[in-house]
Amino acid sequence: MRALILGGGGMVGQKLARHIAAHGLAGQKVDLTLHDIAFPSDTVPGAAQLEGSIADAGVPEALAKTKPDVIFHLASIVSGEAEADFAKGWAVNMHPTWALLEGLRAEHEADTSYRPRMVFTSSIAVFGGPYPDKISDEFLSAPQTSYGAQKSICEAMISDFSRKGFIDGISIRLPTICVRPGKPNAAASSFFSGIIREPLNGQEAILPVADTTRHWHASPRSAIGFLTHAATLDTERLQGRRALNLPGVSCTVAEQIEALRDLAGNDVVKLIKPQPDPVIEKIVEGWPRNFAPERALELGFKAESSFKEIIQVYLDDDLKRGT
Amino acid sequence: MRALILGGGGMVGQKLARHIAAHGLAGQKVDLTLHDIAFPSDTVPGAAQLEGSIADAGVPEALAKTKPDVIFHLASIVSGEAEADFAKGWAVNMHPTWALLEGLRAEHEADTSYRPRMVFTSSIAVFGGPYPDKISDEFLSAPQTSYGAQKSICEAMISDFSRKGFIDGISIRLPTICVRPGKPNAAASSFFSGIIREPLNGQEAILPVADTTRHWHASPRSAIGFLTHAATLDTERLQGRRALNLPGVSCTVAEQIEALRDLAGNDVVKLIKPQPDPVIEKIVEGWPRNFAPERALELGFKAESSFKEIIQVYLDDDLKRGT
Repeated sequence: MRALILGGGGMVGQKLARHIAAHGLAGQKVDLTLHDIAFPSDTVPGAAQLEGSIADAGVPEALAKTKPDVIFHLASIVSGEAEADFAKGWAVNMHPTWALLEGLRAEHEADTSYRPRMVFTSSIAVFGGPYPDKISDEFLSAPQTSYGAQKSICEAMISDFSRKGFIDGISIRLPTICVRPGKPNAAASSFFSGIIREPLNGQEAILPVADTTRHWHASPRSAIGFLTHAATLDTERLQGRRALNLPGVSCTVAEQIEALRDLAGNDVVKLIKPQPDPVIEKIVEGWPRNFAPERALELGFKAESSFKEIIQVYLDDDLKRGT
Repeated sequence: MRALILGGGGMVGQKLARHIAAHGLAGQKVDLTLHDIAFPSDTVPGAAQLEGSIADAGVPEALAKTKPDVIFHLASIVSGEAEADFAKGWAVNMHPTWALLEGLRAEHEADTSYRPRMVFTSSIAVFGGPYPDKISDEFLSAPQTSYGAQKSICEAMISDFSRKGFIDGISIRLPTICVRPGKPNAAASSFFSGIIREPLNGQEAILPVADTTRHWHASPRSAIGFLTHAATLDTERLQGRRALNLPGVSCTVAEQIEALRDLAGNDVVKLIKPQPDPVIEKIVEGWPRNFAPERALELGFKAESSFKEIIQVYLDDDLKRGT
């Protein structure tokens, strides 16, 4: 089996590649190719690497011509950057997905036995308030960021190309992935990881929102589980609704902090410095806080059941690696 | 005030143009331009006409450069055609909307006082089953046709360009417009009008679905009301959710036929010939049947309250004109 990871140089892409290199997919050995604008120095051994921008002319079509059996489409600029640079957001987060789908359709039409699985990492940013207490699987997408609009549009394209049988796609709306190892990024959600990761590494962390802010989280380990499960799921079970809300943990920043205190003590918690940032507050205010992801649970997607468990995953998987 | 109607040669476009030529918009006189691939011989007098395809390179951008105050974007190929010709559906129903929005953004950036109202005719085809008894304003878009996917994607683009302040857009999800005057078209919904119009004109009409089929209708007169109301509404009242389910009449084909019998008698009804068509049945089966369009009602959008009233509008507005 041949798999392609778009955005394979990113945090989730690298973890996914490492997992597939070690375990394959559905018991099969996988010939793995990663594509991204850059790769970390300690990138996954044994995977082919292609460096370039998915937004460059001809790149998505050229990738389609390699006819992967599974495509993990994680390539995207983050919410904060897409909000700050409108043109770049659409140029990276929407148009290449269209070009890729058209490339895959051309391959399918040349050889109708070719119908790749595409797993697209969408986001809970496809939603916009006002919200019910828990967002159901039938709640509308009404994004309040460009990033959310772009994700929502890619979902609709992938669903229609799948309905027509050109590809076999699934869009998974990831919770905020937390605790991210490594450096902060330009995502407006970056601080949700920062306030746990930095203190655990003995550094101060800025908290730009009120600690009453409630949000929806899952660990990087859960993200890898979501992706591999989506890659191997029987998509007939989706019954034509190919965008899924995934399970996660709903908690407030205060609850995140209490979980950190439980696991690491008071001195660590003291490294969190509240410093409200109205720009970030405004973006995060528009984000969902809680879900009832019944379809995903029935389909076998799994996440943590508490934020303490999420921190423990970071301690087990990343802190010991020094990231 | 200057208004542009894209799809101005179509049935709704012509009626809208005729209405605006006679009544203006919000009490103001309107300098009107129509754009379409073709116009009827009895086209609206007093409106400028541009003939061409919105899907041709450079056309949407050139139209944006004319800086209309209001743009009615009705240009689209119909559901049946978009389903039969996949590439054409996306080429006409999605890409030109993107190009138009980018053109309008360029005009806005050159002169930030320019922020045109755009009224986009979306459709209840953005929805896909299974449905609740009545579709609420918070029900998800999960289209089961390419036409529906394209409309849904245009909605998301228009909302995001509006959120950023480049335009001031609103997407109105029209019920099936019934009774359409004139000839049948390639829309899978064409028969909903045909079974009323043809018998009233002394001709046989094919009924391709079971008479238990329930659907959601409004008259062409209501459509013009929706469009002009959307063009003049205070969009602040939309609170960021710029795609609206509109009011209409929910009834079965059997109820349509009984309304026709009431108004025109048994001999007219006998001209309806049931002849099931599995392709049309499958498309229509996926369409919504009933709505609770609370937001649109609160915002002052109005439709008929019975199918009999809808037929009466046809008798008053079109049959006497011989269409």
